[in-house]
Amino acid sequence: MKKMINNPDNVIEELMTGYVIAYPDYIKRSKLHQRALIGKKRNTNRKVSVLIGGGSGHEPAFLGYVGRGMADGVAVGNIFASPSPIPIQAVTKEISEGHGVLYIYGNYAGDLMNFEMASEMTKIEDDIKTAVVIGNDDVASSKDIDDRRGIAGELLVYKAAGAAADFGYDLEEVRRIAQLANDYTRSMGIGLSPCYLPQTGKPSFDLEANEMEIGLGHHGEPGIEKTTIRTAKETVHVIMQNILKEGLYNADDEVIVLVNGLGATSQMELYIINKEVDEILKEQNIKTYKSYVGNFITSMEMGGFSVSLMKLDETLKTCMDHPVDCPNFKEV
Amino acid sequence: MKKMINNPDNVIEELMTGYVIAYPDYIKRSKLHQRALIGKKRNTNRKVSVLIGGGSGHEPAFLGYVGRGMADGVAVGNIFASPSPIPIQAVTKEISEGHGVLYIYGNYAGDLMNFEMASEMTKIEDDIKTAVVIGNDDVASSKDIDDRRGIAGELLVYKAAGAAADFGYDLEEVRRIAQLANDYTRSMGIGLSPCYLPQTGKPSFDLEANEMEIGLGHHGEPGIEKTTIRTAKETVHVIMQNILKEGLYNADDEVIVLVNGLGATSQMELYIINKEVDEILKEQNIKTYKSYVGNFITSMEMGGFSVSLMKLDETLKTCMDHPVDCPNFKEV
Repeated sequence: MKKMINNPDNVIEELMTGYVIAYPDYIKRSKLHQRALIGKKRNTNRKVSVLIGGGSGHEPAFLGYVGRGMADGVAVGNIFASPSPIPIQAVTKEISEGHGVLYIYGNYAGDLMNFEMASEMTKIEDDIKTAVVIGNDDVASSKDIDDRRGIAGELLVYKAAGAAADFGYDLEEVRRIAQLANDYTRSMGIGLSPCYLPQTGKPSFDLEANEMEIGLGHHGEPGIEKTTIRTAKETVHVIMQNILKEGLYNADDEVIVLVNGLGATSQMELYIINKEVDEILKEQNIKTYKSYVGNFITSMEMGGFSVSLMKLDETLKTCMDHPVDCPNFKEV
Repeated sequence: MKKMINNPDNVIEELMTGYVIAYPDYIKRSKLHQRALIGKKRNTNRKVSVLIGGGSGHEPAFLGYVGRGMADGVAVGNIFASPSPIPIQAVTKEISEGHGVLYIYGNYAGDLMNFEMASEMTKIEDDIKTAVVIGNDDVASSKDIDDRRGIAGELLVYKAAGAAADFGYDLEEVRRIAQLANDYTRSMGIGLSPCYLPQTGKPSFDLEANEMEIGLGHHGEPGIEKTTIRTAKETVHVIMQNILKEGLYNADDEVIVLVNGLGATSQMELYIINKEVDEILKEQNIKTYKSYVGNFITSMEMGGFSVSLMKLDETLKTCMDHPVDCPNFKEV
């Protein structure tokens, strides 16, 4: 393991410090908790606040999506581990404007438990109403939709929720739109090489030199199968086949495409993957409304990528056209 | 070598296709040459056009910096190899508005030869006047400034040049400001792990499992020394010592900080590095005006990073505050 860090026990604290130094106009530390960051840019129309969060190691997620048009605050966990309820409650209190707070997080046991506990605490102790949308876009993780993990598609849910909040909608309507964004989103990824956990130095999974893992999760969770490495065309074909067989995306539909790198896969590769995704969508007469290609939700230096599609209706299209100004996501 | 590509001979063509598909509002293919891309967003004040380019493998450079407020077109070379004069000439012709074209590229033998030849061809054949600024920010590459390589600092030169062009300045003034940006910029990088060339499968350099290379170039050019891997604090200390001993950055100066990842170094590490840079600047009473942290000019999946500083005077500050809207670089 080669990492440019200091004491492995301090990586979260130091990355947060370096982050706030980099974007002083966008984000500040919470007054209430060390693992909580609060956005400094907020649309004046916005009543409902949006809170995101999860484990660290996914930078620029989740802290990079705090800003105008997306989240108002973020709770920061240890590497690949949920934030505890206390920082979630702290963020909730600091970002609440009296009209409720929407929580968006991935479908992981730790997050489910801690965000739910935080929600109960803020209700009882702080009289703040919360609602929740749980990201579960990864088609490779289970046949049962409710059991699926959330992976990169969550980014699109943040954007939809942020726009809905900026439009001045109430908590139930912001939740409804964010849930719709989630329900219209499917993703699948592959892994090429592991990342290494700073404190243990251990790889997140094992693969042979010529192997890839199809359907791998963002923390190295096992996928559908290990195979010898294939071309971009063949790999994207498998991914798209799995996404399209959900039956959600049909001819003449408009979709958002998200090609997300896990960290160590070159951007050259991500654009080649984007080309392959586009070819398959064209074959299916599915129209790409917009593409995002880059390292949006990473797994430190893991090699691999995911593809996400989000189907658009008129509501979601309006949301996805809404401008965003965050440190790591900007649309003019 | 694990790469998610198709035929290694087609990576450039395929990445360009995937790129143009991703950003149809920003960039299009040249009508004149396959290895030339033309921007679709241009400030109406702009008279002088800005052309950038270089080898591929540095994505999102260089094509990601074509857009409003930065470059008007890009010539695309093979991996780590200069574009030939023909696509450079093609871009020049397509972006010229009759007031001259500024070329910005790094100080590499191939680029020098090909851009110079293109400049002569456009002068004679197309009657287009060109000027040039050559990036040479890498302090580790030579004691003699004129012999130094250009690395990530070039990004800041693009921004200064693009702003000056947007202000409606003439060719000589745009060149002067871009040259000033370059002259006020110093960088140094380190390497942790090589990238692999798609066609040969060979690593760009060799390092032992516990080694790092201080002063490594963007194509794996040797640096100052190979040492056992150090902490982020110690490594940044060495880098900053080399940059600061140039005597360009002094107490009370204002600087731009650029922490650039080479591809496979996690963003978590880049923010920790940013914290270390900030601590040293504070000790020196040098004021950070703005920081950029991310993978701006990569070397495919190389592990490592560079730090750049740019000193600001009033002219450069105005340029660096100017909004930019490119696919891979946006400032609202």
